[in-house]
Amino acid sequence: MPYQPLTEATVVDYVKNLPEVLSSVFLPGDTLRGVDLADGNVNLVYRVSAEQNLGRTVIVKQALPYARVVGESFPMPLERSRIEADLLQIEARYAPEFVPRLYHHDPEMYAIVMEDLNQHIIMRKGLNAQVVYPHFAQHLGVFIARTLFYTSDLYLPHEVKKEMMAKHINPGLCKVTEDLVFTHPFMEHPGNKWNAELQPEVDEIRANNSLRSEIFLLKEAFMTHAQALIHGDLHTGSIMVNERETKVIDPEFAFYGPMGFDIGAVLGNLALAYCAQPGHVEDPEKCAEYRLWLLDTIREVWNVFETEFRRLWNEELNRENWDTDEFREKYIRRLLQDTTGFGGTKMMRRILGLAHVLDLEAIPDPQRRATCESQALDIGQRWVMNRERVRSIEDLIVMIKESKAKYPYGA
Amino acid sequence: MPYQPLTEATVVDYVKNLPEVLSSVFLPGDTLRGVDLADGNVNLVYRVSAEQNLGRTVIVKQALPYARVVGESFPMPLERSRIEADLLQIEARYAPEFVPRLYHHDPEMYAIVMEDLNQHIIMRKGLNAQVVYPHFAQHLGVFIARTLFYTSDLYLPHEVKKEMMAKHINPGLCKVTEDLVFTHPFMEHPGNKWNAELQPEVDEIRANNSLRSEIFLLKEAFMTHAQALIHGDLHTGSIMVNERETKVIDPEFAFYGPMGFDIGAVLGNLALAYCAQPGHVEDPEKCAEYRLWLLDTIREVWNVFETEFRRLWNEELNRENWDTDEFREKYIRRLLQDTTGFGGTKMMRRILGLAHVLDLEAIPDPQRRATCESQALDIGQRWVMNRERVRSIEDLIVMIKESKAKYPYGA
Repeated sequence: MPYQPLTEATVVDYVKNLPEVLSSVFLPGDTLRGVDLADGNVNLVYRVSAEQNLGRTVIVKQALPYARVVGESFPMPLERSRIEADLLQIEARYAPEFVPRLYHHDPEMYAIVMEDLNQHIIMRKGLNAQVVYPHFAQHLGVFIARTLFYTSDLYLPHEVKKEMMAKHINPGLCKVTEDLVFTHPFMEHPGNKWNAELQPEVDEIRANNSLRSEIFLLKEAFMTHAQALIHGDLHTGSIMVNERETKVIDPEFAFYGPMGFDIGAVLGNLALAYCAQPGHVEDPEKCAEYRLWLLDTIREVWNVFETEFRRLWNEELNRENWDTDEFREKYIRRLLQDTTGFGGTKMMRRILGLAHVLDLEAIPDPQRRATCESQALDIGQRWVMNRERVRSIEDLIVMIKESKAKYPYGA
Repeated sequence: MPYQPLTEATVVDYVKNLPEVLSSVFLPGDTLRGVDLADGNVNLVYRVSAEQNLGRTVIVKQALPYARVVGESFPMPLERSRIEADLLQIEARYAPEFVPRLYHHDPEMYAIVMEDLNQHIIMRKGLNAQVVYPHFAQHLGVFIARTLFYTSDLYLPHEVKKEMMAKHINPGLCKVTEDLVFTHPFMEHPGNKWNAELQPEVDEIRANNSLRSEIFLLKEAFMTHAQALIHGDLHTGSIMVNERETKVIDPEFAFYGPMGFDIGAVLGNLALAYCAQPGHVEDPEKCAEYRLWLLDTIREVWNVFETEFRRLWNEELNRENWDTDEFREKYIRRLLQDTTGFGGTKMMRRILGLAHVLDLEAIPDPQRRATCESQALDIGQRWVMNRERVRSIEDLIVMIKESKAKYPYGA
């Protein structure tokens, strides 16, 4: 079928013509109905379910040649649909319990049909509502460790890794990250948005050449360190959860990049949630309690990651290429340092750049929000500027605990 | 023509059937003669010249599916011929005066026909004979700066660089470097060769986990840091010189790797020549004088590189992607640190691994040779272990001056 954007009216017929989807999910005689979920920033997303039983349901996700919420002025390559389908299959090889099942990939329509995670919510929304996810750290730590280790030179034969790297260049979506994470937020740029209350602080950051030069070093690492096939956009809006399960979605930013970029995305977004809590919770005790869970989760995501990564290293290392315990220790320390730098950068860009996060945006009072944002900017800067001195995850936690808003914004 | 290895008998007919070579180099009526130069380690190399005037001459270089001097037990991909032809053209775009002219590339015969550098000698041979090349540092510094800068993210549009990187993966020849430079020399391996006089020192190095872990970090950087399209084998045997000209040959190891690997190869091989001089020159004053020129050349190669690199940065930086003077300073400092680490590694592998260098091999007395080799191992270890503290090229020079043989080998 030649490319055309699907609609609520056409998506049902589209699914009806996919025998492997019908036989995997639906029963003969099911009456299908399509609903536009309109909840992606960049893609068309439809739910197609059986009227007879809403548990028989799939998601159809189709790329547009631009970002849906911005419009044609923000072009994005249709190719991202193929990348997402590829990645879902690769991730399913190493961590099947943590990704939605892929039923169908249509390279002409730039569409994929996949498992409907209608029993899960976007993690960021849960964090805003102070929900505790008791298995999240365990799940996510294992997911990151496996997807990164198994796609890296630590595991793959040298030529397989190089061919994978060449196959998974992703210039269009990498450029979005290069601009929106590492460049525009730290300069004057028409796409930037920020809380007007923060003006003096924003001006200071954009004039801070020492900070900016470190951000550029991190950007250079993002653009050149082809360590593993990373997810590339692993914030808490790309994770769907409930109290039992954790699913990582939206891998269309994937390419061979630095492992720390994925780990840092998770930790940085948990730290953003930490900063946002006083904007949502009136009771100081409840606020402190949830913040403590967030700090524990940051610590535990790293610790689970590290434990699983060490297990894989011991059991599945490509020993033709690598050796020595001391190398392993230095490698893991560098990963933590990269994680710190990328995590800090990603925190700051959510306050200074084009794309903000609900954690902070949902705080209506600008002064109260500014206090939360200012603390996040402080953590971000501490993480970036001190990353090479970091020796353990506790160092990151300490920097969070010592952080504070730069100015007294309002009361 | 289907692939078959050329011979002295067939190479003349081969050239006669290449109209663009005939018209570029030869005159109608020229009687061509082919000679097997048999001077490559891995390829067939023929000279085809006109009997009427030996100045009308070309080189025909053809890949074998294995390394010529080792035999079929050391397979090497024929693809390297295409890579060499590609690279000669790319280098010629940015630094035409420093590479041989390519007349013809034959993808079926895995052969290239190029300029005969019969007025030049392999630089390593000149260094062994204490020849001073007054323009070498200027030429080579400019060559490295231009080929690295113009193929990096500092200059290229983001998508062009990523496509170039994907096009220039080079698994077969990278694997040779990964094994022979970064792995085998630092472990027990049947391919290794070393001067028996050095046995205690060799044992110590192979048991030095701190050193080995640093070498593995450098190996990981070699395998993952896709900074620029590097030559990949830029030792003094890949450079042909006379007192006026400098030509860089043999780029078949090229791929997107760390810039410091090329710069380190040059500086490390000059330092090897420095160590070897007392094995060749009896007169201590003459020896000291030539060593001084070698130290000056190490310094000047870096300084010329840095000056040209800064000029390119100021005039041709991709300013959409990069900014800030402080970033430039940090970037250049890291380049020097990478250079130091890779240079040190490459010095050591020439003494501990499979492939040695004529500078040292040409010293007949094993004890005298061991003294030179031991000093080179000392420099290599200093460079690797101290690379992150390096701030200027003088730091490398000081480490050379302070180096010495570990044991008194013989007299």
